[in-house]
Amino acid sequence: MDFQDTICATSTAQGIGALGIVRVSGKDAIKIVNQIFKGKNIEEAESHTVHYGFIISSPTFLRGERTSNTQLQSSNMIDEVMVSVFKAPKTFTAEDLVEISCHGSPYIQQQIIEALIQQGARMAEPGEFTQRAFLNGRIDLSQAEAVADLISAENRASHRIALNQMRGGISSELKDLREELINFTALIELELDFSDEDVEFANRKELEDLIQNLKSKIQNLITTFEYGNAIKNGVPVAIIGKPNAGKSTLLNALLNEERAIVSDIAGTTRDTIEETMTIDGITFRFIDTAGIRETTDTIEAIGVEKAKEKISQAKIVIHLYEDDIEILKELEGMLQEKVVFNLLSKIDKEGHDHEMDMKSLQRNHPNYHHFGLSVKKNINLDRLKNELVESVKSGVDENTVIITNVRHKEALLKAMESIENVESGMQSGLTGDLLAFHLRDTLRHIGSITGQIDVDQDILGTIFGKFCIGK
Amino acid sequence: MDFQDTICATSTAQGIGALGIVRVSGKDAIKIVNQIFKGKNIEEAESHTVHYGFIISSPTFLRGERTSNTQLQSSNMIDEVMVSVFKAPKTFTAEDLVEISCHGSPYIQQQIIEALIQQGARMAEPGEFTQRAFLNGRIDLSQAEAVADLISAENRASHRIALNQMRGGISSELKDLREELINFTALIELELDFSDEDVEFANRKELEDLIQNLKSKIQNLITTFEYGNAIKNGVPVAIIGKPNAGKSTLLNALLNEERAIVSDIAGTTRDTIEETMTIDGITFRFIDTAGIRETTDTIEAIGVEKAKEKISQAKIVIHLYEDDIEILKELEGMLQEKVVFNLLSKIDKEGHDHEMDMKSLQRNHPNYHHFGLSVKKNINLDRLKNELVESVKSGVDENTVIITNVRHKEALLKAMESIENVESGMQSGLTGDLLAFHLRDTLRHIGSITGQIDVDQDILGTIFGKFCIGK
Repeated sequence: MDFQDTICATSTAQGIGALGIVRVSGKDAIKIVNQIFKGKNIEEAESHTVHYGFIISSPTFLRGERTSNTQLQSSNMIDEVMVSVFKAPKTFTAEDLVEISCHGSPYIQQQIIEALIQQGARMAEPGEFTQRAFLNGRIDLSQAEAVADLISAENRASHRIALNQMRGGISSELKDLREELINFTALIELELDFSDEDVEFANRKELEDLIQNLKSKIQNLITTFEYGNAIKNGVPVAIIGKPNAGKSTLLNALLNEERAIVSDIAGTTRDTIEETMTIDGITFRFIDTAGIRETTDTIEAIGVEKAKEKISQAKIVIHLYEDDIEILKELEGMLQEKVVFNLLSKIDKEGHDHEMDMKSLQRNHPNYHHFGLSVKKNINLDRLKNELVESVKSGVDENTVIITNVRHKEALLKAMESIENVESGMQSGLTGDLLAFHLRDTLRHIGSITGQIDVDQDILGTIFGKFCIGK
Repeated sequence: MDFQDTICATSTAQGIGALGIVRVSGKDAIKIVNQIFKGKNIEEAESHTVHYGFIISSPTFLRGERTSNTQLQSSNMIDEVMVSVFKAPKTFTAEDLVEISCHGSPYIQQQIIEALIQQGARMAEPGEFTQRAFLNGRIDLSQAEAVADLISAENRASHRIALNQMRGGISSELKDLREELINFTALIELELDFSDEDVEFANRKELEDLIQNLKSKIQNLITTFEYGNAIKNGVPVAIIGKPNAGKSTLLNALLNEERAIVSDIAGTTRDTIEETMTIDGITFRFIDTAGIRETTDTIEAIGVEKAKEKISQAKIVIHLYEDDIEILKELEGMLQEKVVFNLLSKIDKEGHDHEMDMKSLQRNHPNYHHFGLSVKKNINLDRLKNELVESVKSGVDENTVIITNVRHKEALLKAMESIENVESGMQSGLTGDLLAFHLRDTLRHIGSITGQIDVDQDILGTIFGKFCIGK
């Protein structure tokens, strides 16, 4: 792409700080900043160098002209700054880029931006710097999307996934298969040109292998979405049980230990969720099950409905009990897809028999964890935490490429559909042109993830519109 | 100074942004960052250069060792960053300084700081970077104080004053006189050593001239404090008048035009003040005069007391009236020191005679402004704004050095007291040692503004440097 205009924006967080960065990108970035910069002539500066000087609001000074202190003062000086010069193409946007490091005052940042606009720059739209990085071919679309995820990552797991994706995780995962597929599609299309001659350039056996390979890869990626989404948004957990079963005690015990870590990071707590905590880099979100607390004594129909609604949102259900597991039995139908911790509470108390109560349950179900717990005596608290984390990770390696983006998942589902059309088409002897159509379709869906096709302008707008200004 | 430890902190505003800066300063700054930086060996980098790479949380990588993507991923990579290297002494702190420009995520910044601490850096105290700049002699105390003022400046006037002070305004204003005074003090103290011989090294006439010069300079600076303080905190304005005199209409008219400008800048509105607005770079703060509104119909004693309390906080009083100026007459005793706008309201209405109502007032008082006003027909609104601004500026030039800091004002008042002691001491023939005592006192107070409080060192330096007479 060749953008004619130069954009600018404050790139650091809003508010008062020691430093603030105003970023300028575009073909005139260096020239424009130079016009309001009292210091070295940065048009002659080397790339990746930093220069001390002053930003002034009107370019009344000829460089090199000797000026007294008084003259400088009256020239609408805005701030004492450090200016970093980055020359295309090795910059964030792949364009000429200048970063003005000024004092972290909103007033000063606003003044600098006004001065830049006066010199011909334009205020950047949200995400426009990253969009240019994408449109200039420096990063692909999935990497651009990862930048936003990385910035908002609040725990180790989501941070790691975003960083992996920003470094091209998804792209490299699909790159080889996509290239092979392009190859085959080209061959199939070539056959069409020679359709009279009944030649076969594309080896059908190899194509079939490729399709199987691609299907399994795509399926694997789709499977990671559930994990990825849970990591990104926190894993919803419902703690259920009769009144006084020890639910609050357990929650407090878990939170007290972990809260210090969570509260360091701004914006961790969400409005709709009662409490969140991060264990071993994974954030768990506890769903309010107050509805159950009030009605389970009699297990009325209305109470169970309320409880079910809450539980349906959870990925993990922790059931605490003292005497019986009636609640769990009542709910069992809807727990098939969930991880269930069925815990005998207060095992420090006399007379609590752990083994006895579980007889009637399908205790060998792989998603069920049964053990006794005592918060008071700190029995099995660590076990609970470890198994909570394990149940989320369940086989996902730290270096596995994880899908966290709904757009990517949708694209993969559509790619899967198309590739299955290719597969069944080959089995049913579909004509070459229809086969080619489904192959193109597959390529298009895979390519839409990384933006290696002409992605719709609307989609780009949606993706970059969610960014903050200055990114 | 020679600090042994290396400090680090996030220097950009809190919260999520596109970029965040983590700053590291101290003798090991470059070495420490280098240990967690995967990229160029920055120990070999030139000063004022920027380098692309990754921050990792454990230094398990030997630089130059070839590592696969997978290895890098598993090495606890924290972020993709740009690292700026600044070598002492030409840095903000006058020490080796490194700025890590990372993604603007609180989580990432925290991880980077933890990694730096693991390598031996220490979390910086508030203001510690600027403190080091001062203790390392790069800036004086008044300049260091100006950095904080500059960052919190919310309007053009306070921004300009802070910038001027940061660039050494106060220091340079006092520098020459202070040096002369040091010189004289040295001479007077030298006389003490030769007290038997009754010599006079210090020319008494010249000392007297210097004292007069210093007194006038100090007095000028003290005088600017009122303006400086008003600029920094906003100029308090009371709008008074009977109910329906048009007070709210005027306030809304002023605010509607200016509010957009004000609300761009966070934190402008203070709790204790009803409304603020910035005109021509100066912020005005409107004091709630509700007390007057309710009681002025009868001008009861209690109502006037309430009104007086409010008005006593104001620097400017705007009185709006339709028929009579009884309120103003009642309050006149306490308006001597204030700027008063006595405005005939609603002059668009028929029968309002501007001239008639003012006969009885001391209309030639320089602080009184009398004119008619119509918000409805926009008559004299601009005049009011211009005269409001002028009344605050009143002769203070944009390049005048302005005192905004109470500490500076206190120091100047004390210096004034001491210098007057010197003056009266000379007139009454005070002995040399007592004169020297008051001179040192003056120097100490002046020096305390800029932090040049090692007065003894200065005097010693002057004696041995200039007047080495072989004793």
